[in-house]
Amino acid sequence: MVESPKQSRMQRQWPWLSGYSASIFTEDMVAAIIVTVLLVPQCLAYALLAGLPPQVGIYASVFPLIAYTAFGSSRYMSVGPTAVISLMTAAAIATLPEEGRLVSAAVLALISGIMLIIMGLLKGGFIMNFVSRSVVSAYITGAALLIMISQFKHIFGVQAGGTTAFELLKSLFSNIDGMNKMALLVGLLSALYFWLSRKYLAFGLFKLGLKAKKSRLVARLAPILAIAFSIWASRYFELPEKYDLKIVGDIPTGLPMITVPPVDFAMLQLLWLPALVLAIVAFVDSMSTAQTLASRSRHRVDANKELLGMGASNFIAGLSGGYPVNGSMSRSAVNYSAGAKTPVSSLIVAALMGVSAMFLTPVLKYLPLATLAALIIVACFSLFDFKSIWQTWKYSKGDGFTALATFVAVLIFGVQWGVLVGVILAMTFHIRTTLRPHMAIVGRFPGTEHYRDAERFNVVTIEEVKTLRIDESLYFANARYLEDKIARLVVEHPKMTDLIMMCPAVNRIDASALSSLETINKRLESAGVKLHFSELHSQIKERLMKSDLARTLSGQIFFTQHEAMEALEPEPDWSQFSDHVDIH
Amino acid sequence: MVESPKQSRMQRQWPWLSGYSASIFTEDMVAAIIVTVLLVPQCLAYALLAGLPPQVGIYASVFPLIAYTAFGSSRYMSVGPTAVISLMTAAAIATLPEEGRLVSAAVLALISGIMLIIMGLLKGGFIMNFVSRSVVSAYITGAALLIMISQFKHIFGVQAGGTTAFELLKSLFSNIDGMNKMALLVGLLSALYFWLSRKYLAFGLFKLGLKAKKSRLVARLAPILAIAFSIWASRYFELPEKYDLKIVGDIPTGLPMITVPPVDFAMLQLLWLPALVLAIVAFVDSMSTAQTLASRSRHRVDANKELLGMGASNFIAGLSGGYPVNGSMSRSAVNYSAGAKTPVSSLIVAALMGVSAMFLTPVLKYLPLATLAALIIVACFSLFDFKSIWQTWKYSKGDGFTALATFVAVLIFGVQWGVLVGVILAMTFHIRTTLRPHMAIVGRFPGTEHYRDAERFNVVTIEEVKTLRIDESLYFANARYLEDKIARLVVEHPKMTDLIMMCPAVNRIDASALSSLETINKRLESAGVKLHFSELHSQIKERLMKSDLARTLSGQIFFTQHEAMEALEPEPDWSQFSDHVDIH
Repeated sequence: MVESPKQSRMQRQWPWLSGYSASIFTEDMVAAIIVTVLLVPQCLAYALLAGLPPQVGIYASVFPLIAYTAFGSSRYMSVGPTAVISLMTAAAIATLPEEGRLVSAAVLALISGIMLIIMGLLKGGFIMNFVSRSVVSAYITGAALLIMISQFKHIFGVQAGGTTAFELLKSLFSNIDGMNKMALLVGLLSALYFWLSRKYLAFGLFKLGLKAKKSRLVARLAPILAIAFSIWASRYFELPEKYDLKIVGDIPTGLPMITVPPVDFAMLQLLWLPALVLAIVAFVDSMSTAQTLASRSRHRVDANKELLGMGASNFIAGLSGGYPVNGSMSRSAVNYSAGAKTPVSSLIVAALMGVSAMFLTPVLKYLPLATLAALIIVACFSLFDFKSIWQTWKYSKGDGFTALATFVAVLIFGVQWGVLVGVILAMTFHIRTTLRPHMAIVGRFPGTEHYRDAERFNVVTIEEVKTLRIDESLYFANARYLEDKIARLVVEHPKMTDLIMMCPAVNRIDASALSSLETINKRLESAGVKLHFSELHSQIKERLMKSDLARTLSGQIFFTQHEAMEALEPEPDWSQFSDHVDIH
Repeated sequence: MVESPKQSRMQRQWPWLSGYSASIFTEDMVAAIIVTVLLVPQCLAYALLAGLPPQVGIYASVFPLIAYTAFGSSRYMSVGPTAVISLMTAAAIATLPEEGRLVSAAVLALISGIMLIIMGLLKGGFIMNFVSRSVVSAYITGAALLIMISQFKHIFGVQAGGTTAFELLKSLFSNIDGMNKMALLVGLLSALYFWLSRKYLAFGLFKLGLKAKKSRLVARLAPILAIAFSIWASRYFELPEKYDLKIVGDIPTGLPMITVPPVDFAMLQLLWLPALVLAIVAFVDSMSTAQTLASRSRHRVDANKELLGMGASNFIAGLSGGYPVNGSMSRSAVNYSAGAKTPVSSLIVAALMGVSAMFLTPVLKYLPLATLAALIIVACFSLFDFKSIWQTWKYSKGDGFTALATFVAVLIFGVQWGVLVGVILAMTFHIRTTLRPHMAIVGRFPGTEHYRDAERFNVVTIEEVKTLRIDESLYFANARYLEDKIARLVVEHPKMTDLIMMCPAVNRIDASALSSLETINKRLESAGVKLHFSELHSQIKERLMKSDLARTLSGQIFFTQHEAMEALEPEPDWSQFSDHVDIH
């Protein structure tokens, strides 16, 4: 049977559509309910972390999920607010006055979304290759530590601000006198509960006879109990009124309108770089989550589709009063292990979050901020990966230094800079290993047309005509080494009148290398030495012929090395043989 | 004769010392006088460009020259204020209040100097390899345009400020009403004279019978006439008093004291990045000047010594009330062609500049700023190199884009960012060409122990055990492609139970690639596939054995590919032969 193009396109985008059934729907539904229970407190907490009102977190958990389902390629991915992206948002909008932040966060999501969509349309999925794995884990470790530090203020119930570890700690210490003991009590108790349930509950339930998988799921949901209890306690004991405990407060009821946030040039100037870094981090992080989930179920994810999926999610987050979103590793894992079979699960989560936005918000009013901060802090523990930094260091000092610098840069310069520092250092260290092109002075095996390395073989070289064989492609990082090498040759061989560059293994000459060759040509000329080429690949020769070098070249381009030597070798002056010819 | 170590060390640092004579001194002296005549107006102009008082330019032309002579390796290099470095200084200190700039400029020189010295001591000369030639010329072209734009305010005699082309033009246009017609007249006449003498004087003198070399030298010195005339005119016609023409004004007489400028932490935070970029630009630019000069005279320059020389110059510039300095291409060329033979010429220049600082400054008081601005603007013409950007673009779109982005970045973001943008883009484009490691599924030639590419040869492969041969080193930029390739293999071969990675050509596995292998191992395991290795180089194997991967590897490490296949191949089920074995 021949499928219509439309059908096959739908099939490619949503292969799970065919064969969807009531029983699959039930499984998706169960997973969706569990994810929603996890998501409600998390989206409030992450909005708090981003320095935004709680409803923004809820809004970011409705439409972005639908957009991802339409365009993304992972079946189990749960999109929405996440810790690292929330921290990046906080850093990007930190310098703005309070009233401008809401709009800026939406614009940030919008710009990031557009950037991701453009990258996706340009098939730019390869960009993730630049962000090495050790940089990502060092970056997330640094960000997690910074997130923890940023949440201490809610645990201590004091005012504090800043975007670097130094600023945060400084403002925390200078305000510590105004500490709220009730916030500290609520925060510490919540943190203790979250930590214990995370660490021991699954194991305990398993020991009590529950199945391993179920035990883990129940343990994952345990936080909701503490959330509910702290809401009840805060309300019943009138903690906000009596002890000045900070709570979530009134959350507007209802769903956001789809509107384009007001964008101006100054805002774009301020936000484009954070948006770019955020887009890359969101993509690389989500892609790694998607790949891990896909490999478990023997599916595949497509980097360019992921770009479109993440782009669409962020774009719609920006239009619907939300803020930047990302694929959440923890919620996606829960979604998968709770039995989700298709992205319909995410659609149900979006619907449930919509319902929450309309009816649940009054219930959440009394939730203490200290409890949410404790939730964030304990969640950060699972993001730490100091082991990876240590192992990278043990394996390779250069890679380890890059990871460490990334980690430190996040803490000292803030979350936007870490990834940039890491990517640039990783590229630098890699290029560092390729700085010296392999090359050798060659000479002729007497009586043959064979030319070999003069240092290793017993070949004939003459002082007037030297041949340098280049064994690698020439590009900007190794071209100057070539300049230097030739400068040395000129000094070492004052009798030289001709230099042949023999290029049998040069596959590529980039513009900088070409320019170095032009410089070499000029410098050799002013030193009275002609530059020739031999054995150039034909496509390289063609490109050179079109360049300025061909016009200004003091010597010639020979087809073979032997032709060159035949043409350039001076008539041997037999009377002075022993003076002129070095036989090694 | 055996030289004492001390002698030979001096010989190595100052090889020209032996054989120095009165006649060489005379030649050095003549060149020094000519360079000084050129340097006096230039150092005032560049101080103006940097937004600093005129004496700072003079101070930067005394001690730095002596320091370079002591530590640098180029014989003809003329160190001192230059256009691009002055603009970088202006940009770095632009945000500071007027009274803080003097100290900040000195501190900037001090930090850059220390950075250069450290790089030199660590043998960090290779760092220049990262700055490709096309990036440098695009950068200097952009900077020259920005310099021209920044000087228009002196020609028009209005107030204007900013560090980007946009800001400069905006403030110029908004203040254009206050234009000073006398400044415009003086500026345009000076510019016209400088331009005509630069373009036609040498040729005219040559036609009149002067020797070519002498003609060029005289033409180079022509500006001093206009300088002298404009000082006389400005004083005689009382232009400052009658027409409010801006002049250089009183310059303190005498030499600077050597003092450490007051440095505080906030200043360091503000200046470290500009200082780093400045250090790199100063070094790369000077190195290129030094190499060009050295090649003419068949000398050699040493990158690490140049670092020390530039470092010492800037360090002492910072301590002696100056600002960042650099090797000047134009003055060095004049020095060389005026017949300088040794660095003694620079020592004489330093002495003459010291004398100027003590006695000449009252004379310079009436020099109009518009004349100096015209001098800078015309000097910028020779820095433009649009042709190089265009040729780079013609030769390679990627390299051309990098050059263009560098140029645009200088204009839009300011002079500090251009080099960073260029270096990062160049590295990115290079790594982009190495993203996909070459690899192939291999199979066995029936009846032999030879394994070859299954797509090109008629070999036997089986569905349960697949072999992927990796033909390149694995590092962060290509490791993820491997992950993706293997994810695709898993989906394409649902019957696969074992995957062998055959690594005969893998010379290096960096930490990120190792981590990718760990991830691949985990993902394969959860998909029910064991990962094996074969034909690993022994040093790679050793490193892998020490890593976590060796502990968690689901499969084994085999010495040869054949061993691996012998161990893993399932007992052939002959009854289903045609189902199980694909024979291509």
